[in-house]
Amino acid sequence: MRRERVRDLLAQVADGSLDVDRALATLALDPSESLGYATIDHHRALRQGFPEVVYGAGKTPAQIVGIACRIADRGDGVLVTRIAEDAAAALAAELPGVEHNAVARTAHLRPSTPIAAARARLLVVTAGTSDLPVAEEAAVTADAMGCATDRLTDVGVAGLHRLLARREMLDEAGVIIVVAGMDGALASVVGGLARVPVIAVPTSVGYGAAFQGIAPLLTMLNSCAAGVTVVNIDNGFGAAMAAARILHS
Amino acid sequence: MRRERVRDLLAQVADGSLDVDRALATLALDPSESLGYATIDHHRALRQGFPEVVYGAGKTPAQIVGIACRIADRGDGVLVTRIAEDAAAALAAELPGVEHNAVARTAHLRPSTPIAAARARLLVVTAGTSDLPVAEEAAVTADAMGCATDRLTDVGVAGLHRLLARREMLDEAGVIIVVAGMDGALASVVGGLARVPVIAVPTSVGYGAAFQGIAPLLTMLNSCAAGVTVVNIDNGFGAAMAAARILHS
Amino acid sequence: MRRERVRDLLAQVADGSLDVDRALATLALDPSESLGYATIDHHRALRQGFPEVVYGAGKTPAQIVGIACRIADRGDGVLVTRIAEDAAAALAAELPGVEHNAVARTAHLRPSTPIAAARARLLVVTAGTSDLPVAEEAAVTADAMGCATDRLTDVGVAGLHRLLARREMLDEAGVIIVVAGMDGALASVVGGLARVPVIAVPTSVGYGAAFQGIAPLLTMLNSCAAGVTVVNIDNGFGAAMAAARILHS
Amino acid sequence: MRRERVRDLLAQVADGSLDVDRALATLALDPSESLGYATIDHHRALRQGFPEVVYGAGKTPAQIVGIACRIADRGDGVLVTRIAEDAAAALAAELPGVEHNAVARTAHLRPSTPIAAARARLLVVTAGTSDLPVAEEAAVTADAMGCATDRLTDVGVAGLHRLLARREMLDEAGVIIVVAGMDGALASVVGGLARVPVIAVPTSVGYGAAFQGIAPLLTMLNSCAAGVTVVNIDNGFGAAMAAARILHS
Amino acid sequence: MRRERVRDLLAQVADGSLDVDRALATLALDPSESLGYATIDHHRALRQGFPEVVYGAGKTPAQIVGIACRIADRGDGVLVTRIAEDAAAALAAELPGVEHNAVARTAHLRPSTPIAAARARLLVVTAGTSDLPVAEEAAVTADAMGCATDRLTDVGVAGLHRLLARREMLDEAGVIIVVAGMDGALASVVGGLARVPVIAVPTSVGYGAAFQGIAPLLTMLNSCAAGVTVVNIDNGFGAAMAAARILHS
Amino acid sequence: MRRERVRDLLAQVADGSLDVDRALATLALDPSESLGYATIDHHRALRQGFPEVVYGAGKTPAQIVGIACRIADRGDGVLVTRIAEDAAAALAAELPGVEHNAVARTAHLRPSTPIAAARARLLVVTAGTSDLPVAEEAAVTADAMGCATDRLTDVGVAGLHRLLARREMLDEAGVIIVVAGMDGALASVVGGLARVPVIAVPTSVGYGAAFQGIAPLLTMLNSCAAGVTVVNIDNGFGAAMAAARILHS
Amino acid sequence: MRRERVRDLLAQVADGSLDVDRALATLALDPSESLGYATIDHHRALRQGFPEVVYGAGKTPAQIVGIACRIADRGDGVLVTRIAEDAAAALAAELPGVEHNAVARTAHLRPSTPIAAARARLLVVTAGTSDLPVAEEAAVTADAMGCATDRLTDVGVAGLHRLLARREMLDEAGVIIVVAGMDGALASVVGGLARVPVIAVPTSVGYGAAFQGIAPLLTMLNSCAAGVTVVNIDNGFGAAMAAARILHS
Amino acid sequence: MRRERVRDLLAQVADGSLDVDRALATLALDPSESLGYATIDHHRALRQGFPEVVYGAGKTPAQIVGIACRIADRGDGVLVTRIAEDAAAALAAELPGVEHNAVARTAHLRPSTPIAAARARLLVVTAGTSDLPVAEEAAVTADAMGCATDRLTDVGVAGLHRLLARREMLDEAGVIIVVAGMDGALASVVGGLARVPVIAVPTSVGYGAAFQGIAPLLTMLNSCAAGVTVVNIDNGFGAAMAAARILHS
Repeated sequence: MRRERVRDLLAQVADGSLDVDRALATLALDPSESLGYATIDHHRALRQGFPEVVYGAGKTPAQIVGIACRIADRGDGVLVTRIAEDAAAALAAELPGVEHNAVARTAHLRPSTPIAAARARLLVVTAGTSDLPVAEEAAVTADAMGCATDRLTDVGVAGLHRLLARREMLDEAGVIIVVAGMDGALASVVGGLARVPVIAVPTSVGYGAAFQGIAPLLTMLNSCAAGVTVVNIDNGFGAAMAAARILHS
Repeated sequence: MRRERVRDLLAQVADGSLDVDRALATLALDPSESLGYATIDHHRALRQGFPEVVYGAGKTPAQIVGIACRIADRGDGVLVTRIAEDAAAALAAELPGVEHNAVARTAHLRPSTPIAAARARLLVVTAGTSDLPVAEEAAVTADAMGCATDRLTDVGVAGLHRLLARREMLDEAGVIIVVAGMDGALASVVGGLARVPVIAVPTSVGYGAAFQGIAPLLTMLNSCAAGVTVVNIDNGFGAAMAAARILHS
Repeated sequence: MRRERVRDLLAQVADGSLDVDRALATLALDPSESLGYATIDHHRALRQGFPEVVYGAGKTPAQIVGIACRIADRGDGVLVTRIAEDAAAALAAELPGVEHNAVARTAHLRPSTPIAAARARLLVVTAGTSDLPVAEEAAVTADAMGCATDRLTDVGVAGLHRLLARREMLDEAGVIIVVAGMDGALASVVGGLARVPVIAVPTSVGYGAAFQGIAPLLTMLNSCAAGVTVVNIDNGFGAAMAAARILHS
Repeated sequence: MRRERVRDLLAQVADGSLDVDRALATLALDPSESLGYATIDHHRALRQGFPEVVYGAGKTPAQIVGIACRIADRGDGVLVTRIAEDAAAALAAELPGVEHNAVARTAHLRPSTPIAAARARLLVVTAGTSDLPVAEEAAVTADAMGCATDRLTDVGVAGLHRLLARREMLDEAGVIIVVAGMDGALASVVGGLARVPVIAVPTSVGYGAAFQGIAPLLTMLNSCAAGVTVVNIDNGFGAAMAAARILHS
Repeated sequence: MRRERVRDLLAQVADGSLDVDRALATLALDPSESLGYATIDHHRALRQGFPEVVYGAGKTPAQIVGIACRIADRGDGVLVTRIAEDAAAALAAELPGVEHNAVARTAHLRPSTPIAAARARLLVVTAGTSDLPVAEEAAVTADAMGCATDRLTDVGVAGLHRLLARREMLDEAGVIIVVAGMDGALASVVGGLARVPVIAVPTSVGYGAAFQGIAPLLTMLNSCAAGVTVVNIDNGFGAAMAAARILHS
Repeated sequence: MRRERVRDLLAQVADGSLDVDRALATLALDPSESLGYATIDHHRALRQGFPEVVYGAGKTPAQIVGIACRIADRGDGVLVTRIAEDAAAALAAELPGVEHNAVARTAHLRPSTPIAAARARLLVVTAGTSDLPVAEEAAVTADAMGCATDRLTDVGVAGLHRLLARREMLDEAGVIIVVAGMDGALASVVGGLARVPVIAVPTSVGYGAAFQGIAPLLTMLNSCAAGVTVVNIDNGFGAAMAAARILHS
Repeated sequence: MRRERVRDLLAQVADGSLDVDRALATLALDPSESLGYATIDHHRALRQGFPEVVYGAGKTPAQIVGIACRIADRGDGVLVTRIAEDAAAALAAELPGVEHNAVARTAHLRPSTPIAAARARLLVVTAGTSDLPVAEEAAVTADAMGCATDRLTDVGVAGLHRLLARREMLDEAGVIIVVAGMDGALASVVGGLARVPVIAVPTSVGYGAAFQGIAPLLTMLNSCAAGVTVVNIDNGFGAAMAAARILHS
Repeated sequence: MRRERVRDLLAQVADGSLDVDRALATLALDPSESLGYATIDHHRALRQGFPEVVYGAGKTPAQIVGIACRIADRGDGVLVTRIAEDAAAALAAELPGVEHNAVARTAHLRPSTPIAAARARLLVVTAGTSDLPVAEEAAVTADAMGCATDRLTDVGVAGLHRLLARREMLDEAGVIIVVAGMDGALASVVGGLARVPVIAVPTSVGYGAAFQGIAPLLTMLNSCAAGVTVVNIDNGFGAAMAAARILHS
């Protein structure tokens, strides 16, 4: 249960629109709930400001639907990442308001009480067209966390003027996520131009010695631009969560 | 042939329910038996307390059925791990009592003489829902080895209170198996809380820099909690066999 | 030249304490300056809010002194990381105000105009005593960037209550840097407890399968706590620079 | 503070040999104690049956002496592993009863109240003479944990009869630790012969494709003998701690 | 063209059964022949005693048929390894005498003049049933090179007595090929027992930290039994070729 | 827009065949153009002498068609590499003159103004038949860049005389590309024989310890023949682009 | 013996300044010469245009002196790379004209007949000051091969304007060598800006996940700028030899 | 005890020069002997035709002397590999006849009864001068095993004619050992030219992407010349032992 929702409940009690017993029942729910195959951490929203996100890979559609419904029952929004087509269909059948983004492989149900808006905008920069699914996962996650997102697409360093021509976008963002595969060099260039926090996401785009993303991962970890941080390969979700931690602080 | 079964045979001879010649014939069977494509180690049960377990991967259904029937012919139980659906069906057709667990990818035929019960209970702890197939392989194997198993599911360290709330389960177990992918950090946390032997199983759950289980494998090998031991990635079977060695000693 | 210093100059011109020609001369200095063996990026402070930091490894004492003096000549502060004892001594002889921290392997000369203070405090958490040099590099760097730092030392997950007992420190920080070697599990635990940005620094502490820091690096990249970001092995400097980007935004 | 020592205190109170106030003072000591550079986990002995062991690598002699003295002050025994010659000398000067084992690189101070004896003996088997330092670290650690140890040295599989000739030692042990570098094959052979728990320690002995212990580590993780568990490369300490968990359960 | 065949031709000329012009035409064929997509090395048989073997992977059925027919046209035998089902069918349609072994993934056409017999027998030992395809590739290749082969199957070190019971087979072989995946320990044990050349073939059998054969490859390269040599993972063909070099010398 | 085409435009203006306004309109097009999912670098041809090449992997057919049509609209030629069958069909439907090479996985539309011819010929040497797709990608790319190509196929070092017999081809080439998988040794041999620039392309041909091309990549990076350069695994395109840089200089 | 020197000899014979017998004696020298510990390839200069270069690492000073003197005896120039201080001193004592460059770790004796000058200049660009030794090795080697060299130092992408300000240098070079460690991103940026051949040299500068140069090596192999080629880590020599092949063609 | 020596003893008994009791005493010695830190396998000579060889690395001089003296006491020859200078000196002081080869890092004491001569000669081929220590270790070992050795030095593939000029040496050898670092390509070339068994030894010569011998190791494992076998990096000893197995069979 998110802080905003607890505050709402208390406000409703205060103005008489919710009676005390029903408010109590809602607040008294157990912070974690076991489904046998999963133990849902309902307190995560209170503790960290956003509810537990469901990692869809390796879970059956039935498990995903089961977990998502339990979270939705509490009035929290639900975000599922790495969701397969069949699981997304099953989820949509059960929770009608769910938005499925096939490129990002996400399913998102917005919470009844809107999440608080972040203090600045996020910019997601990609090196190439093939990096879009990861960038999209970041954008959907950021949206779910209350962060508005701008995009700057296909501005890899092989054609540097594409980036330099849009340099003002780097100056206006609150946080920048750089998504790049292959040589991953874009993170260093953006890191050297921008003042704000830069989070680099290596992608598994490429072949041969790209080693499914190891090459850009190493590039980014060794960025000569000081203060660039890195998340796991293809982890658009994690980059957006890190951005949300910054933009809500 | 297990020790319990040899003892049974001798008892039957002693009370006259089995004549000497038939007992002799049973005992005189060759300790290893060649099928051309396999050499069955029938003495393993006598030597180590449990019969040879059949590793199903890379074997044809016909080979699995052939080996399993030879072991069953001796009256020993049979456990097949990493068994594919078609092989499991073929085996069930040949050996009716076989229990097939599709999640664990196991097929199990209980022995005529029940295996001796272990001196304490096993606890299998998993970090996430996606780790369940490996945990299930461990539980089925432990059961086949005479060890009763409790489960604590989806208590990864991102929501630490889920584990701390069930801490008494760690104190009551005779051995704990920790199954975790991604960061594998749960093994260190459990290893620091528990007094009893802790066996860590890294899983191939995750993506990118999880490198199909290398990340949690390294985490577990470097556990700062002293005395945690590790088995191969996804090797729920091996962890349970190690637990059985401990719980039968 | 930092923004603060440009503002100072303009203010001095405005109030008549500096004549136009001298102000002009200072501002007209070339944004980059070549020493033959180095090309100093004097505009980095204007562009990114902090001057270029000198990476001492692989440079001779004479090169380090040469570069540092050129930066100091502009009135900016100077920070040298990974500085060897002999280079630190040579630098101290040339620039008397330099503070040498032997544990952190840093040399720091404060700028004439103090750097602006960050909007919140930084917390540096370490898993073990052997991680201190990296933590110290982070603390010195943060100090040079205007960020006040608290420390929480030797609270690795093998003895979890040491961290839980000081949990309020996690709640009060603006950014948390987690420094850990071996299993690196502390980053996931802190990431699961804290709301604020968490930057993880793997260290080369450990042996064998720690592989000079690869083990905690992978652990941290795969953290099951959402939104933890990672920097290079032993890169206390980079973590602090990332924290400074956040704390100055 | 170990359980045995708490029981002693209570017994002394019961029989009047210790007055209540002094007992209280002893028991009221904080469970963790901060030295600035370290946070000692004094409750580990109560929680896990053995006090915190000091990992000497990466710590200065002064830090090691400081930590060890604080632990010794509580009446607990102290074990330091990976201790350098100079630190061992400094420690011996401060704590006279310390036993320094140069081969094992350990320093050990026995507790005033002897630790409880384990329920069975430990056997440490080594493949070659060059594996002795790791085996010795295991033996010293086991001794500190109350486990008596037998040794079987230089019985690698290139001369299999050396092991087969001493096979009865495998049958009599409560736990077996196998220490081997290069091909690490001894773990599989011992694992196939023994009924009891087998803990394998890969060593960095070898050259070239031994890769500082990666080769035997992989061999042991893939052992075809079921139920062999593995610890980090050269981690004699960890293997002995795992054995102690088993032998005290 | 093999030496035996050149000798045959000359003998036929000597006894008048072949006229000089036709013999000349045969001998005058170019030592290498280009097909556009391939350059056949017809002199390999003369130079090395056996004709070029066709590696089927990555070649289209048409390319395989084209190359094989050109070799067959010279009267040499043809061996294709790693051949897919469709290519084997296409080849059998074109060259009727071809023997297809689906387990070994080979297609073999015997030469008109039989190849000379080797001076001793080859023994192929496998650790497990899943290693059979690689062992079979070795056996087919050895047969094509004139070497008679014995087999000892599924005698991995987890049940050592299976190997020890057949130890006389090790003493009678001219060369031993050991095929093993997972821990690869069998190579060291056989290498320690046998006097004759031992060639080890790691297989990709196993999972997790077997890393598609890297684990047994490293084990074998680090064999503590002196004088064991190693070939590529799953390279039954190469092992048999090495054995043929030995057995024909 | 390539330099040749700009020169053409100017010539047409000079001779009156193109009026100034239309020429201006053409020249005034933006150097980069955003399609949302891609930002086309139209100035690359002016800057580097050849237009941006479209990397087809990870792009949808619609994206490929969209990008290619925008480039073609400017009158530049279009080259798409790593194109799948369905995308090639979609592209051919939209741009009729496209040449699809299924072996090379390329689609190529020639520019209206032919590209300038290179100053010498390129020679592409392959070690084996399975390396042909990579060699073909190099040849198609070279053709698109105006370089005429000769081929020397299947001359791996196992049959050295095949190469030595054609040694004059090495002497006549302006640049040599060596394409080889497995041991990659051909690059060193060619590098030792030739005077001209040698560019080595490792391929993923092979199995086991070839590690999808790592083996030949390392061989080539360590070539004992001085001055051999290397491109990514299977990167026939990159090798040809490097050759074009040389042959047009 | 280089072609220029053969031509000189013939010219001297033609104009009578050298008698036929002495010319014959010089030309009749064996193309390779054995010193027991080395076999000198005297024909390399004739074959490839430059004499064999001596790789100093792993050779004793006596061996280096022995080999260098034999090459010098033929009138060819001598270049030794990776030469230690003691070997350089020994060589200078024996061959007085040798130029020792301690930064580049080279020793160079110019040939009596100057080597032909290359058709264009070489530009060596470095990312940081710590990359200078590798750049210097390249410059010395290029000089020995007759190529004049310009330098652009410390222009890494963290401060992009340093490079952009000197962009005309990229346009004027015949070949560009980019030397960079850490993220290696400079190669992609230069590759995207320049038309001419770009050879990238990764260096072992950096720490942690730079992995002694693996990070920049992978970055460069995956460069998104088309047609960048790569040599071994720290291989300034190889890059210059590749440049010489291009600049002499 | 070697077979030759047992035969000698029996012959001496037969001709009366040795009385039965003393012969019996000699023959009755235990097949393995424990020194505490080592268990000597005295039967290895009888079993495999050559006595146990002492691996000197990781053993103290006292341990080496102790083991060597015990072997020498039985009248067998002693070979120590990887022996340090101080251990070699200590050994020479104790066993006067020992031959120390500092380049090969070996110490060798010949047996009283000479070892039987091999049936053919060994040829050791090296790619470069820096490979000599490994080649020398092979030659000393071969000598100790009764194999006469020829050498062909510094004939790497960069100057192929050096090898082709001595091709008759390849035809005359019984076994060929190829020692090469860096690209390791020589093994494939020799493997393609020779008929006899070829054993490849990768060396750690090289730098950067040679990765201490991984590059030539992979090259050799992937040799396109069929039937080349490989031993560990720098393992001249193992290659010679493999050759001895072949040359004595």
